[in-house]
Amino acid sequence: MNSKRYILASGSPRRRELMAMLDVDFRVDTSRPVDEVVPEGTSAEETPAYLSRLKAQPYMDSLRPDEVLVTADTVVILDGKVIGKPKDADDARATLARLAGKTHKVITGVSIGRPDGSLTTFSEVTEVEFDTLTPAEIDYYVERYSPLDKAGAYGIQEWIGAAAVKGIRGSFYNVMGLPIHRLYRALTANC
Amino acid sequence: MNSKRYILASGSPRRRELMAMLDVDFRVDTSRPVDEVVPEGTSAEETPAYLSRLKAQPYMDSLRPDEVLVTADTVVILDGKVIGKPKDADDARATLARLAGKTHKVITGVSIGRPDGSLTTFSEVTEVEFDTLTPAEIDYYVERYSPLDKAGAYGIQEWIGAAAVKGIRGSFYNVMGLPIHRLYRALTANC
Repeated sequence: MNSKRYILASGSPRRRELMAMLDVDFRVDTSRPVDEVVPEGTSAEETPAYLSRLKAQPYMDSLRPDEVLVTADTVVILDGKVIGKPKDADDARATLARLAGKTHKVITGVSIGRPDGSLTTFSEVTEVEFDTLTPAEIDYYVERYSPLDKAGAYGIQEWIGAAAVKGIRGSFYNVMGLPIHRLYRALTANC
Repeated sequence: MNSKRYILASGSPRRRELMAMLDVDFRVDTSRPVDEVVPEGTSAEETPAYLSRLKAQPYMDSLRPDEVLVTADTVVILDGKVIGKPKDADDARATLARLAGKTHKVITGVSIGRPDGSLTTFSEVTEVEFDTLTPAEIDYYVERYSPLDKAGAYGIQEWIGAAAVKGIRGSFYNVMGLPIHRLYRALTANC
């Protein structure tokens, strides 16, 4: 897989860090954003896969012969509903209060595009068990960290990952935004 | 918990990173190492808790009134046996070949010492599912990374964490060497 040049079409600094773990040559390209609109009737579980494909479309026609495109979308699902990025600090507090004491799912959809026009998509699910949180703990996190750019209003790699996350079932890196084991396998299976 | 000064008696750079996630004032002190000898008949599962207590002993008499001591020991257990740190590169390769395609347990024992002489100990278990690995993948990791200072010959935060780890069940940070959620709860329950 080292002979390829990878394009990560994502502005997420966490995804950039995770992609770097694969020891491959890649660059970030966020020049072709899309409106992240999901068709009526798309289930919460199908949403990230759909959005990762949508994010890939604008890049597909311009891939060079040695280039491979990677896009991703991550959602947090609680009680069957997608929990998006919070609108503001109050929304972040409300989101964390909803997640506290419960187990939610994090699903990342990944699409891999190739110069022959093929687009492979998969989804990875991780269950995350949150402990209870006091209002003071929620305030502390929202005031000191940056929950607004994160699905579910938390970053598992931050203080809240210590304070709130009792355990997970599945891929940790999927919760950070990119299921790198599945991605590694998909890239090596067809390099 | 912010009014206390924590002493982390561990030379592990991973534990230092994880302790820093708790946003507390701490310093590392490795000035009083012990011989890590486990009594005959101690089970694999009990070993890390025993060793974390042993590591704490030399520091207990000199804790100041505002100081709290944290020690830890991590073992990898496969088929009921402790897999230690590898002796050399060949041993690291053999260890990774044994872990490949199987699920192993990572147990970290943690002891928390206080100036009144009390020493609280707990163990946290995480199951880690390894995918199969090719000899080329094992060679790549052993040659490019530093498996020799790591229980089980791997660091989940490195390339091998992407290549090998399909998923976990439990605390991710426990696999890195410190179960920071349990630690956070233990420290805030009795600050």
